[in-house]
Amino acid sequence: MSPDKMKQCMDECLRCMQACNHCYTSCLEEENLKMMKECIRLDRECADLCEFAAHAISINSSYISQICEACAEMCEKCGNECKKHDHDHCQQCAEACFRCAEACRAMVA
Amino acid sequence: MSPDKMKQCMDECLRCMQACNHCYTSCLEEENLKMMKECIRLDRECADLCEFAAHAISINSSYISQICEACAEMCEKCGNECKKHDHDHCQQCAEACFRCAEACRAMVA
Amino acid sequence: MSPDKMKQCMDECLRCMQACNHCYTSCLEEENLKMMKECIRLDRECADLCEFAAHAISINSSYISQICEACAEMCEKCGNECKKHDHDHCQQCAEACFRCAEACRAMVA
Amino acid sequence: MSPDKMKQCMDECLRCMQACNHCYTSCLEEENLKMMKECIRLDRECADLCEFAAHAISINSSYISQICEACAEMCEKCGNECKKHDHDHCQQCAEACFRCAEACRAMVA
Repeated sequence: MSPDKMKQCMDECLRCMQACNHCYTSCLEEENLKMMKECIRLDRECADLCEFAAHAISINSSYISQICEACAEMCEKCGNECKKHDHDHCQQCAEACFRCAEACRAMVA
Repeated sequence: MSPDKMKQCMDECLRCMQACNHCYTSCLEEENLKMMKECIRLDRECADLCEFAAHAISINSSYISQICEACAEMCEKCGNECKKHDHDHCQQCAEACFRCAEACRAMVA
Repeated sequence: MSPDKMKQCMDECLRCMQACNHCYTSCLEEENLKMMKECIRLDRECADLCEFAAHAISINSSYISQICEACAEMCEKCGNECKKHDHDHCQQCAEACFRCAEACRAMVA
Repeated sequence: MSPDKMKQCMDECLRCMQACNHCYTSCLEEENLKMMKECIRLDRECADLCEFAAHAISINSSYISQICEACAEMCEKCGNECKKHDHDHCQQCAEACFRCAEACRAMVA
């Protein structure tokens, strides 16, 4: 794994963590909570895994590949849910998720 | 995955996190730091992953299996390093690591 | 801080983390999501802080007191919200929160 | 707390987390481990708290102020240790620590 790709992946993970947590707190303020339920649930799961993936990279751990493979998969799942909703926070979150998934896959390739 | 096995795995992950962090702080106080270098490094990596595995189980996330597979592998690596050293904290940590690895493998089986 | 009180506090923090995350995932499955909104939000905040407090104790960090004071306050806030709701997961969470707040206060006293 | 100051603080916390963890892994590779012992210990404590402070801000939690006050203090302690050592990773870490401490204090002011 090249240091550049690791740094880029860590940056995308941290951006995605922020986008997911922003989407999470914003969804909890939406009128139609029932409709946002899956988004809330997946936002937290995704944010927490992105945060841990960035952590794993930052300590240069031996489990980076396994965590980033799981992270890519989770980001795609969360991005696919978020892009269904018109709210700005959901659309922005979907975009961050897909970018992060791509960076994770590029790093472990 | 049965709720019993998940609860047991979470408990072992949290015990292993504590044992690894106790071993980590104790190793940093040992006279021969050079000899404990790998132990220090692996203790932190293992503690952090065990903590996250317990977190993943506690929110019933969709990535439990992937995290716990990585955790089992990490615990074995850390346990194998710790068992080389005679210090009580190392021997106790090795034991916690092997128990945790077993619980992780039992859960994802 | 005595080692016994630290160990007891760490155990209560980890129990509270589990109770809060169980309440969080259960609340997201309740019919009346609107009514559970505050509970969901506080459960996650509280679970995350309890997890970090346990982490801080496990590495014997110099910020244990500050984190555990914040944790005691957060646990009381979360417990007060949870005890308003009749669901078993809310009642159990409230109990875990009040026990954890007490253990945090006992440790930093 | 203004959203701008919160975003700036979160960014500095994440930069400091990365600098501390880079310093931590680099210190473990230095010849004179004994001399780096305090640096290693404080780097991890500081990295973990910075990561949690960024997390607390990202979920807009009610304990941001308490965590960021503890974080400012920890960053100053870690920065003061790091700046004693001539290694690039130590000097860069000290700089990141002092910037983060300043951002934390500006936010809670």
